[in-house]
This record gives sequence, C-alpha cells and structure tokens, in this order.
Amino acid sequence: MTMSKRDTYTPDSLLAVAVEVFNERGYDGTSMEHLSQAAGISKSSIYHHVRGKEELLNRAVGRALEGLFGILEEPESCDGRAVERLEHVTRRTTRVLMEELPYVTLLLRVRGNTGTERWAMERRREFDQRVSALLKAAVAEGDLRADVEPRLATRLLFGMINSIVEWYRPDGKGALDGTQVGDAVVRLAFDGLRT
Amino acid sequence: MTMSKRDTYTPDSLLAVAVEVFNERGYDGTSMEHLSQAAGISKSSIYHHVRGKEELLNRAVGRALEGLFGILEEPESCDGRAVERLEHVTRRTTRVLMEELPYVTLLLRVRGNTGTERWAMERRREFDQRVSALLKAAVAEGDLRADVEPRLATRLLFGMINSIVEWYRPDGKGALDGTQVGDAVVRLAFDGLRT
Repeated sequence: MTMSKRDTYTPDSLLAVAVEVFNERGYDGTSMEHLSQAAGISKSSIYHHVRGKEELLNRAVGRALEGLFGILEEPESCDGRAVERLEHVTRRTTRVLMEELPYVTLLLRVRGNTGTERWAMERRREFDQRVSALLKAAVAEGDLRADVEPRLATRLLFGMINSIVEWYRPDGKGALDGTQVGDAVVRLAFDGLRT
Repeated sequence: MTMSKRDTYTPDSLLAVAVEVFNERGYDGTSMEHLSQAAGISKSSIYHHVRGKEELLNRAVGRALEGLFGILEEPESCDGRAVERLEHVTRRTTRVLMEELPYVTLLLRVRGNTGTERWAMERRREFDQRVSALLKAAVAEGDLRADVEPRLATRLLFGMINSIVEWYRPDGKGALDGTQVGDAVVRLAFDGLRT
C-alpha cells in the first residue's frame, strides 16, 4: 500500500519521476503500480495525466530526440565545411546528453518491444545516419582521414559520447559540465590524444 | 517441461550456454530453470557440473578478466615509452573484447548484487586504473596532450572500446575483425580523425 500524497504533479514533473523508474527497472519491468509507488499518488491519479506507461515513454524519448534533432537545425550544423559542422554536432550532442541525461539514457536503452520503442530506435538510427553522412562529407572534402571506414568512425564516435551516461552524475563532487566534456570529446576524436 | 537431451557438456560448452542466457535475461533475471531449459538438460545435470549460477558467473567474468589482465603482462605493455605501451593495450583490449565478446559483455553489465559481481567490478576498476596510470605516464613523458584530464580521457577511451559490444556481431555480413577495429580505435584516439 502507498501513502498517497496530494496529486500536485505537472506533466513534466510526473514525467521526471517515470523516467527515473524506467531507467532503474527497465521499461519492460515497470508497471503502473511501480510508477504509482514512486510518485506517491494512486494509479487513477496517474491515469488522470496519461493514458498509460507507453505515453510516458513516448514523451520521454520524444524529449531526448527533440534535443538531438534540434542540434541538426542549428546554423553551425548547416553552414560551412562539413568538418566544422561535425565538430559542432559532436560538441552539442555531448552537451544535450549531459543536460537531458535521464531522457537520453532511456532513449539509448530502448529495445524495441512496443511501437513507441521501435519508433524511438528508428529515429535514433536516423540521427546516427545524418551524422554519418556529415562525416562522409568531411572525408570527401579532404578534412578527415579516409583510412577509418566512415560507418565505423561514426560508431566509435557515438560509442564515446553515449558511454558518458554510464558514469556522469550531475550532482557528483567536482562534476564536469557539458562544455568541458564536449571539448574533451572533440579534442580526442578530431585531433587525437597525441601531442 | 524440457525435453532433456543427454548431458554431453564440457565445463566450457556449458559456460557458453550460461553466458548467453545471462546476457539475454540479465544475471539477476536468470534462474537455474532458465539455464536448464537453454542447455536442454535437467537442473540436477547442471548441478553435476557446478554448485550454482554464481559459479558460472564467476568462471565467465573470470575468463574475461584473465584475457584483459593478460594484456598487461605482454612485453609490449611493459617495455618502452608509455604512449607505445598504451597504444598496444588499446589495440589488444579491443581484440580481446571482440574475441571474448559474450564474456566481456557480461563483465561490462555486472551490477554488484552478489560477492562475485562486486569482485568483478573491483577487478574491472583495477584494470581501468592500470590503463589510466599508463595514460598519465604518457602525458608526463610529453607524448600525450595535457589539456584533456587523464581520468576523463581514460573514460572516453574505454567508452569507445566498450561500446563495441553494442553493435559487433562476429557472424554478421562483412564483419570486421579485431585487428581492423583495433587499428581504427588507435587511429581515432591517438591521432584523431582530422587529416
């Protein structure tokens, strides 16, 4: 039994609670009962806000995807040499991941058992392909090396960025911010660790 | 009910089946019943080989850790400039990960609910620290840039390597081998993507 508290949730604050539970238990392993317990309000109060847990997933991964696709619309992602655009996208993707940490973490863990999950995976692949195309363009313009296969390079680049969700805790002692980590990722990926 | 087949398992072949189930369902979510079903032999036949699932976990992550720590004993990891040793460790870690894919995948997913899991996490941290120390030494020798904090650089480097478990399938069409991917990781991390 849950000691129900008064339902003072907004759509955003309820979503934040749900995303935390999804990341902790996995989306498949989360029931409306778990959400009700974590929020401290009854299941029917939750149904007052949303039709069910898939709607919460939809909003959560939608928020992550909006942040990521928004990057591709920024002027610095659209104009200039491909390598500069790619550097901008790399730096900004790192920042969005860190600023929207729980939402992007959920997006990266989605596995494809429901329509919403498959849609999220499809959109994520689309984002990766847009970045991969930029990388290919930068190779064609002669600014990036041609001896690392572009799809592999894109995978390793995203591997590095996405792995940040495994260790970054925004409230940790001496926590780095998105700009610092974004700069480090760009230095490592584009110029390499060697002096 | 399982149609039991004759128990012709060796310790290694039973371990391979168990690791597959652990990676699929998570270690916590795997029961002896699941293992029995996947192996097609009775639970008591499994108990003939091992005391329980924690022993299987112990052997599986032990195999991954042996592969990883073995790298640090190779002559190329011990002699010469730190940057060369670090490059060797990076290339070899990528190869071991790809050659021992299910075992290393399991090691990376272990979460710390049992003694064996906590031991595995502790050993993994130790490996990371040994590599981080090598990276620091290479910065001190002036071969690696000092403007990326060494712990962050180590995390991003492992992030890139470890992310390979997310997409690499050894039997995939046109699958790359460990040497090709290891070379790509070293190029990207040490020399960067820029020409």
